[in-house]
Amino acid sequence: MNSLDTTIEIASFTPYPIKQHPVQVHLNQESLTLVWDNGHQSEYHYLWLRDNCHCPKCISTLTREQIFEICDVPLTIKPLTAYISDNHRLMIEWDYAEHSSQYHPGWLLSHCYSESVLEEKKWSPHIWDKERISRELPTKTFDSVMQSDLHLLAWLRDLRDYGIALVTQVDTQENTLIKVANRISFIRETNFGTIFNVQAKADANTAAYTDLRLPLHTDLPTRELQPGLQFLHCLINDATGGESILVDGFKIADHMRVNHPQEFQSLSTIPMSFYNKDKNSDYRFRGTAIVTDSNDEVVEVRLANFLRGPIDVPSHQTMALYKAYRCFIQLTREVEFQFFHRLNAGDLIVFDNRRVLHARNAFDLKTGMRHLQGCYVDRDELLSRIRVLEREVD
Amino acid sequence: MNSLDTTIEIASFTPYPIKQHPVQVHLNQESLTLVWDNGHQSEYHYLWLRDNCHCPKCISTLTREQIFEICDVPLTIKPLTAYISDNHRLMIEWDYAEHSSQYHPGWLLSHCYSESVLEEKKWSPHIWDKERISRELPTKTFDSVMQSDLHLLAWLRDLRDYGIALVTQVDTQENTLIKVANRISFIRETNFGTIFNVQAKADANTAAYTDLRLPLHTDLPTRELQPGLQFLHCLINDATGGESILVDGFKIADHMRVNHPQEFQSLSTIPMSFYNKDKNSDYRFRGTAIVTDSNDEVVEVRLANFLRGPIDVPSHQTMALYKAYRCFIQLTREVEFQFFHRLNAGDLIVFDNRRVLHARNAFDLKTGMRHLQGCYVDRDELLSRIRVLEREVD
Repeated sequence: MNSLDTTIEIASFTPYPIKQHPVQVHLNQESLTLVWDNGHQSEYHYLWLRDNCHCPKCISTLTREQIFEICDVPLTIKPLTAYISDNHRLMIEWDYAEHSSQYHPGWLLSHCYSESVLEEKKWSPHIWDKERISRELPTKTFDSVMQSDLHLLAWLRDLRDYGIALVTQVDTQENTLIKVANRISFIRETNFGTIFNVQAKADANTAAYTDLRLPLHTDLPTRELQPGLQFLHCLINDATGGESILVDGFKIADHMRVNHPQEFQSLSTIPMSFYNKDKNSDYRFRGTAIVTDSNDEVVEVRLANFLRGPIDVPSHQTMALYKAYRCFIQLTREVEFQFFHRLNAGDLIVFDNRRVLHARNAFDLKTGMRHLQGCYVDRDELLSRIRVLEREVD
Repeated sequence: MNSLDTTIEIASFTPYPIKQHPVQVHLNQESLTLVWDNGHQSEYHYLWLRDNCHCPKCISTLTREQIFEICDVPLTIKPLTAYISDNHRLMIEWDYAEHSSQYHPGWLLSHCYSESVLEEKKWSPHIWDKERISRELPTKTFDSVMQSDLHLLAWLRDLRDYGIALVTQVDTQENTLIKVANRISFIRETNFGTIFNVQAKADANTAAYTDLRLPLHTDLPTRELQPGLQFLHCLINDATGGESILVDGFKIADHMRVNHPQEFQSLSTIPMSFYNKDKNSDYRFRGTAIVTDSNDEVVEVRLANFLRGPIDVPSHQTMALYKAYRCFIQLTREVEFQFFHRLNAGDLIVFDNRRVLHARNAFDLKTGMRHLQGCYVDRDELLSRIRVLEREVD
């Protein structure tokens, strides 16, 4: 019993509190059904159970990784015996290679793959328009995010769910944003470096480094994996103009799906090309502006007018793609979707660059300086950090 | 004419040599047809042409990025006049906002999107089994890759097409692989650092850092974007065993598609979960083991038995997924697909980690030392570097 608890801990850093006890086990053809004391039923396939044996022969106690390969047992493997032990473990003796397995009830229940449980586990973003985010913009102070894991976790969950969150009262010293980024993980490097300075430059190689208006866009759509989180830390903003505008791309996509289904269909299936050519680089990516997953949920938006390459789809798709693209852009221009936020010195705005489009009004350099620093951290790092923090807190 | 050539150059670093001249232009409803002097016909939509105007009002001469937005003209924009000038430019005067555009014939032809041209431009990988790669493994010396852009370009194109290439006679000083990686671009950082040392360690947090056999796998399938190129530089290999085994995942996928279509279908549509939990990280990704693009071409393989999480798909898909996964793994074990290569000190093998599965035999530390250094560079960087080198060479 103790030895099982240990092997569970070796196999995973996540705790699995026991919330229910299994009370009955029924053997089917390819699976067994476990009935829990609250009436819930879980079906586990024999192959799945054999695959998830936690014994030290199957999982390396050193690396916590699986040594056993599911290929190496017959497809038709079955239990010789299967029962629930006095201490509520599912115990199985297999009909192949004299192997036995035992399963911790907390682990088993949390890996139940019945459709109702899978449905419950689905992530739902908080989709917003101007009105909602003006009311609900998640905000923490620099000190609380830096010093409290609990505050950090709350802020990161909001950032994941809203795709945007603010930190205030941040030192206006250069490179302070690294400290906040490192509360999540390392910074993603690009051809613009690890930290980039958004200020008007004489030799600008991209629109961000001018004083021009920037239309709504995602950064680096020319990269296969667009950067996930974008950090923008305002050091100085004394110039007139230069307001930030943010739009939830998921909201636009949802609106399109309902009101312009044909255009939604085109924009999520016909690929566009994005180019960014410079002296020493020539990045290109071809993909859809709206990305949906296998459940047809919108998971990403990819768009920057000034980084598009010529459309290169077969003739019969050209007009459909233009119509859909124009529809999307026109929607991003509607004020009901646009969240205006003037960044002040000491503000650090972080947003999901693969979801939230950002823009900037033109500014007037004659009226004062404007200096932002930016960096990127990928979604993988955000989600990993949330999971690690949740081990302690939940 | 000169001014056009200049604006073309501003808009793109790529040269567009004039290979054909346009001889006729026909106006259709939504597009025009250009007939070239070799008989080829190109259809260009009016919106597409207006979108691709290269004049300095439409493209910033500073950043070479588009200022104009295609949203800002009517969907039905048409030419008032369209003709071919004496110097072979397509000249258009638009029926909206008194705008005129002219198009360079080299640029136009190279952006023709007729289906035959799109078909020709498609990339075809060189798919291999043991026999083919044993004969054709692309190989260059360290000096040639470091000193000649021409050799570098040939080596990078091979790396792109075969998904694998070797560099020999590399210094066996630590961190020399950084020099080769930087011939392409910057290194992709992960939670294992920028450079990782593959040698047996007492506190191994993953199977790579033990002396155990490693089954065929891709690295970091737990990340949304698996690292593209993997570099493995052999500094010492005196131990018995430890041979590298490499398998072209595209070959396995192709073989499956032909011989086990049902399993191919399952593995390319039903997602698997990959987990990598450590003390300070908890990376997870859910995606298909075989990734196909919108043309149903295989573009990626994602697989590491020891980094799988429990299968978490609805019950009715569980057995189909297990059958498909077992089929794939069994195929990777067939010797006709397995390229064995013993890395010697001074060898640097580079492969596309999203295509080529790699494995290692167990080795015997008692017989000698084994030390490899590794790093990752993403596909985007490889392709960008090839394009920049091609500007000079082709």
